[in-house]
Amino acid sequence: MSGRVTLALDSMGGDHGAGVVVPAALSILKKRDDIDLILVGDEQLLAEHLSDVEPAIGDRIRVHHASQVVGMDELPSQALRGKKDSSMRVAINLVKQGEAQACVSAGNTGALMATARFVLKTLPGIDRPAIICPIPAKGGHTHMLDLGANADCTAEHLVQFAVMGSALANAVHDMDSPRVGLLNIGEEEIKGTETVRDASQLLGESSLNYIGYVEGNDIFSGDVDVVVSDGFVGNVSLKTMEGVAKMIGAYIREEFSRNLFTKLLGLIAMPVLKALRRRTDPRRYNGASLVGLQGIVIKSHGGADVVAYENAIRIAALEVEKDVPARISRLLANEEKERQGV
Amino acid sequence: MSGRVTLALDSMGGDHGAGVVVPAALSILKKRDDIDLILVGDEQLLAEHLSDVEPAIGDRIRVHHASQVVGMDELPSQALRGKKDSSMRVAINLVKQGEAQACVSAGNTGALMATARFVLKTLPGIDRPAIICPIPAKGGHTHMLDLGANADCTAEHLVQFAVMGSALANAVHDMDSPRVGLLNIGEEEIKGTETVRDASQLLGESSLNYIGYVEGNDIFSGDVDVVVSDGFVGNVSLKTMEGVAKMIGAYIREEFSRNLFTKLLGLIAMPVLKALRRRTDPRRYNGASLVGLQGIVIKSHGGADVVAYENAIRIAALEVEKDVPARISRLLANEEKERQGV
Repeated sequence: MSGRVTLALDSMGGDHGAGVVVPAALSILKKRDDIDLILVGDEQLLAEHLSDVEPAIGDRIRVHHASQVVGMDELPSQALRGKKDSSMRVAINLVKQGEAQACVSAGNTGALMATARFVLKTLPGIDRPAIICPIPAKGGHTHMLDLGANADCTAEHLVQFAVMGSALANAVHDMDSPRVGLLNIGEEEIKGTETVRDASQLLGESSLNYIGYVEGNDIFSGDVDVVVSDGFVGNVSLKTMEGVAKMIGAYIREEFSRNLFTKLLGLIAMPVLKALRRRTDPRRYNGASLVGLQGIVIKSHGGADVVAYENAIRIAALEVEKDVPARISRLLANEEKERQGV
Repeated sequence: MSGRVTLALDSMGGDHGAGVVVPAALSILKKRDDIDLILVGDEQLLAEHLSDVEPAIGDRIRVHHASQVVGMDELPSQALRGKKDSSMRVAINLVKQGEAQACVSAGNTGALMATARFVLKTLPGIDRPAIICPIPAKGGHTHMLDLGANADCTAEHLVQFAVMGSALANAVHDMDSPRVGLLNIGEEEIKGTETVRDASQLLGESSLNYIGYVEGNDIFSGDVDVVVSDGFVGNVSLKTMEGVAKMIGAYIREEFSRNLFTKLLGLIAMPVLKALRRRTDPRRYNGASLVGLQGIVIKSHGGADVVAYENAIRIAALEVEKDVPARISRLLANEEKERQGV
């Protein structure tokens, strides 16, 4: 499928605001002529950033003024009540109003989730939106959710996450029947918590391709396409990945800078080390989706640079093309029929 | 402190049984003349393995017969009821009877925990034993618990874990006032679950050096000495670490074997790659402690090789020397006094 896509960018959010969003926007417009962008934020500031843009690009970008900015540490409730003209809120409003088909924000996750949920509402049949992200795995990647939106979950929530994850993996990656695994531990007689066991039973009865329990190391095995957990477990696992990757990166640097000989080795081996860094570059995975909403909202990492932010824009465009919310709705309706034995 | 230490080894447990336990036992006896060992398992089989041992070593090792073996997939309840003469159970009995000061088993974790708890009982003031393990971190390592014994935990359980972790870090690593962090997520307005928030309040009122919430990536930062979570979250985090490390290891191998040039680079860089592998070698971290029991029980990884198993034996000896259970009891008593305002 193709056609033009219009995306709204919260141009003030994140650690770097317009300093990253504008260059990323201009860069993507040069590469993709099917994308139009609305930069949401301080009009004057954005005009300065856009002062010397070539007309061919400038025609496909416009500024939508928003007078406020949500702080990175601001409480979601505060942002919701007190920042009705924030760049984040206005960008989401544009999606609601149909002026944009998706929005991207590097602003604080809690505020983004609360605002998106308030403005766009959840899809029928979804109690709680979740955060989903691709994770590198053997031979490709897997999708993992929830990554931090919902600390406490019921079995029914976990099943809804599984449906959303399946629909997204199917839509975005053309996976016919994504293998869904439920994150659990393997040590005890009766595995895991009651919630997880109940969810496992429900998933077994669903029409999803449920393959059963998976453990933390299975995320990377290539044997599962969608890994489901509550947001507490998912977030700890995600942050653990970041921590381990960073530590091993530091080990590699340390070992290659130990003495003159190893430094020389590091120089000679540079092409390999660069290839390695590319493969473990978290920027390639920037862009988490808030799924379960009546609209597409992509969260970029707060500290994302231009390359990383571009990736988040690309994900937004892809989800628009693939019409992810509609796919989720269809799969939910299927599940509902299945359950009623229709 | 010094003195002789007698350890009982479940010589039939794990994926390799006596094939790993006996060589590891003989190797450690050569290196450490303060250790005596009791090999628990099939008398005849073990006698064969020990047939050509030199007398100086042979004098410090004896076999204690046990007629049964707990299977790696056996249910804890089955092992508890049906395997009263298993090598695992008998090794734990020897600790109970004072014939050994600690035991080591590579047998299945669930059965080991259930049997140890049944035979040795928990320390007064401890509701549930936990599994704790050192994790590599910047500038050294941190201790993390619970790693899978308790999927569901109350705030009080988490506080008990914190006390046990502090006592162990203090005893085994001479840390004066170990920094205790509670594993949590940072995305939401009211962070984490109610249980975690309640535990945080209790820890704040305790005499422990509680530094507040930490996230998954902080485990490796070097800024925290004891990371506390329930066994579900802890186990997922631990397994996630294993998975990421394994995947990055595979990436490194792949990149260095891409073509003739990179293979050559790999050969030249071998000393550095070996140093790197040493640092990330999970065998160096083999040996998890079951803490909170009236006795010392060390769990070796089921697939541990000789080097890894030796490490688990060393940890057992160290915990005996440092008298970990007594330290935990003292710290618990202190906490109790503190709470009563004495």
